[in-house]
Amino acid sequence: MANTIPHILGKGRFEINGSLWMEKDGIRFFGPGPVQLMEYIEETGSINQAAKKMSMSYKKAWEIVNNLNTMTARPLVITATGGEKGGGSFISEEAKQLIRYHKLLRKRFQKFLEKESLLLKKQTAVS
Amino acid sequence: MANTIPHILGKGRFEINGSLWMEKDGIRFFGPGPVQLMEYIEETGSINQAAKKMSMSYKKAWEIVNNLNTMTARPLVITATGGEKGGGSFISEEAKQLIRYHKLLRKRFQKFLEKESLLLKKQTAVS
Repeated sequence: MANTIPHILGKGRFEINGSLWMEKDGIRFFGPGPVQLMEYIEETGSINQAAKKMSMSYKKAWEIVNNLNTMTARPLVITATGGEKGGGSFISEEAKQLIRYHKLLRKRFQKFLEKESLLLKKQTAVS
Repeated sequence: MANTIPHILGKGRFEINGSLWMEKDGIRFFGPGPVQLMEYIEETGSINQAAKKMSMSYKKAWEIVNNLNTMTARPLVITATGGEKGGGSFISEEAKQLIRYHKLLRKRFQKFLEKESLLLKKQTAVS
């Protein structure tokens, strides 16, 4: 009796999915969320506007920004003087480079997931 | 000025970590949790005992078992007659095969994570 994984799983669209992040000394500090926030800060020039786009409180966004700047050697988000909503914010060249690295990392992960999902589908097709 | 990822990150142990699961029609249904539960059922012969080992309610464990059996074509956990605590439970050959597949999948994922973390460390070492 054929007793393959596709036999066991049966009908349906089976896929391998997952999530990925960077840790510093075992603590998660960088992933898709912070990247998205930094991209919105770059786009809007404002932590407040970026937070709104993510349906996130200003406090939460500020905590993420502060965490990013504390965890890394070079500041990622730079806030100009003028108070919380007065001064604009922008991201550093280092942040842009980290975002580029992250995009490439995500691509490699996506490739891994697709390869594993394909393996599962191929097995389904032949069973 | 060198502006590499290790320069940006600074001192500390930086690693790539993540989680992985299987989806059926876009719904997450199989990952380390259910695998652990099935292994404990195999070990103890009891859903109740397995639930305790996972600090999980019997209700929650039963829901996972029921979900696993519903999502797959072949039953994974088989409960003998005798009521909730009377009859013993065991896992099928199909469940054992799915667990073996899952372990190999995890190994490949672990390899991916190690490779990415090493890449990050190597970059740190040369910078």
